[in-house]
Amino acid sequence: AVSAMDGYCLASSDRDALSSKGLKMIGESAAGRPFTQPLGQGEAVRIFTGALLPQNADMLLIQEEADTTSGRLMATEIPVAGRYIRQRAQDFASGDQLISAGTKLTMRHLALAVLAGITSLTCHRRPRIAIATTGDELVPPGQTPLPGQLVNSNSLFLTHFVRAAGAEPVELGILPDKAGALHAALSAAGPLDLIVTTGGASVGDHDHIVSDLDSDPASSLNFWKIAMRPGKPLIWANWRGTPFLGLPGNPVSAAICALQFLGPAIDRLSGGTGQITSGPVSSGQIGGFFKAKLTTDLPENDQRQDYLRATLTHDSDGTALVTPANRQDSAMMHKLALADCLIIRPPFAEPLSAGAWVECQAFPAGF
Amino acid sequence: AVSAMDGYCLASSDRDALSSKGLKMIGESAAGRPFTQPLGQGEAVRIFTGALLPQNADMLLIQEEADTTSGRLMATEIPVAGRYIRQRAQDFASGDQLISAGTKLTMRHLALAVLAGITSLTCHRRPRIAIATTGDELVPPGQTPLPGQLVNSNSLFLTHFVRAAGAEPVELGILPDKAGALHAALSAAGPLDLIVTTGGASVGDHDHIVSDLDSDPASSLNFWKIAMRPGKPLIWANWRGTPFLGLPGNPVSAAICALQFLGPAIDRLSGGTGQITSGPVSSGQIGGFFKAKLTTDLPENDQRQDYLRATLTHDSDGTALVTPANRQDSAMMHKLALADCLIIRPPFAEPLSAGAWVECQAFPAGF
Repeated sequence: AVSAMDGYCLASSDRDALSSKGLKMIGESAAGRPFTQPLGQGEAVRIFTGALLPQNADMLLIQEEADTTSGRLMATEIPVAGRYIRQRAQDFASGDQLISAGTKLTMRHLALAVLAGITSLTCHRRPRIAIATTGDELVPPGQTPLPGQLVNSNSLFLTHFVRAAGAEPVELGILPDKAGALHAALSAAGPLDLIVTTGGASVGDHDHIVSDLDSDPASSLNFWKIAMRPGKPLIWANWRGTPFLGLPGNPVSAAICALQFLGPAIDRLSGGTGQITSGPVSSGQIGGFFKAKLTTDLPENDQRQDYLRATLTHDSDGTALVTPANRQDSAMMHKLALADCLIIRPPFAEPLSAGAWVECQAFPAGF
Repeated sequence: AVSAMDGYCLASSDRDALSSKGLKMIGESAAGRPFTQPLGQGEAVRIFTGALLPQNADMLLIQEEADTTSGRLMATEIPVAGRYIRQRAQDFASGDQLISAGTKLTMRHLALAVLAGITSLTCHRRPRIAIATTGDELVPPGQTPLPGQLVNSNSLFLTHFVRAAGAEPVELGILPDKAGALHAALSAAGPLDLIVTTGGASVGDHDHIVSDLDSDPASSLNFWKIAMRPGKPLIWANWRGTPFLGLPGNPVSAAICALQFLGPAIDRLSGGTGQITSGPVSSGQIGGFFKAKLTTDLPENDQRQDYLRATLTHDSDGTALVTPANRQDSAMMHKLALADCLIIRPPFAEPLSAGAWVECQAFPAGF
């Protein structure tokens, strides 16, 4: 047991003496320098915050209510036994489970572990995730694009995304729009837990990701194309034993699909549940769901689940108010960079009027 | 202007020919490999997603609605001019401001910058923040504490906190409870933007932080002690020209005060506003405010603003339900590690019944 305050400690059986003859002060217990003898009858010890209580002491008189002018310890206020005392094993005791398996360790868990004398924890290793962008129109950042060319922003974005989610990015650069390019790059990448590509997934003759996967007897295409916007040409596959996520090539589509699929996949590969949950608490790169009030009308939705880029404000009550961006084209990275969250519109959602509550998704840290 | 789909491009003045004599297909424009001649009357070009539209083309016939069986381009559905075409400068144009000063850069901003051909941005440097813990009772992690000793978890916690907030920690270790120890450690630390200490701020004879600051003519104590719980012995000062934040020594108090004061301070030092805002959007190590429904009664509060450790669940509607931990002692790190958020109780708050809405604070990423 230690003191939670600066003051004096005594045995509660000596309480009455605090207002009559006083107690004899026989020493001092400071944090890290305890008073090592037991307290005798009629005795008290000066004690400081965080200091060990001597044997027999079970009452604390705080400094502000102590009177030592007579040379003996008197009280201006009689203390309550046990108050301002931190009992032994109050926080945890030997044998307690402090951190359960599957916990995403934060700085609070690390502090708790070292307080409990634990300096080593067995954790999931960081998943190794390959990132490959495809497209003959792409040039690396820093190179001036010619007409019809585009700077590759997806590699940079996904490298940050993967790292922020606690995984290790393996950057494979820009793959050419050529049959077999995928196999060549992946075969040289070493062991991987997940493969992420962008682009090359449309129906055109120059998109080879699907055909490369489909024509390889050791690989399998699980699904291709999904009823969401942005993100229609999404691929989920297995490349020679490794899970494979093919994101769209448009930077906005790639980012929003990463939030929906890559964040949860990395969480699962790292020992988490991979679930997107409600509420303001996000873990890793998973953005939680929350509700906000629309500031404008929204039209009905078609068959694709829509993820509208939106900005957030709050009214004086703290109610979240959400406004969709005026244009939602998946090539408009500027709108995504200005957004605070997404509005989620399920397939065939009814029109909504300003003031209606709508389901939103928060952006995780660093997104 | 580029195509947003795979298909064929033509001049809208040739639209009628799609359902009569058809158009002559004269070439192909692929992403990164544009068709460089202008389109003549009655001509069309095969085009793929992301490819440049040739001169004179302003209409896109998607592949799914094209019929080329006759050797000429016919349509099963007449397209709308401009649809599926991404106009030049649709996302941004030369001279637009894309990222305003004071923006906390995330992966979305970096992607936008490289898309705009910018590979270098002028940013605030990371603030250098000294971290010193005080207390003769402290031993470093890995050392078994003797009776009355405690493992120093605050250094580890604050190092993670400072780094997660985007600043650079300067770890000064454990300072002895001795007059002048602070000056000696800080003088050797090099240039600093902020100094953070833990402990040494109680009223006891062994707490020297306040007296060290007070007795130094080049330093000044701005305030000491604050009406919050946990966190009463907080110090705000200036050490020889550098801002100084003295956090309490209890690990829970230190963590909660870091969230209230250190996170916003780092944000401000990094060019942000330093404001804690409402809503699920958190930046840096600033946890946003939100409202949740209490699952239990809460008693009235006294004169200190209270930050109760609490867990969050959600009902089937997605409404956040919050439950305070059954004990709130500031030495109970285990309760803090299990918490999902804080309930904020203003000074002299009235009692609340289960079902009432209460102000909460979210934990930022990694906290």
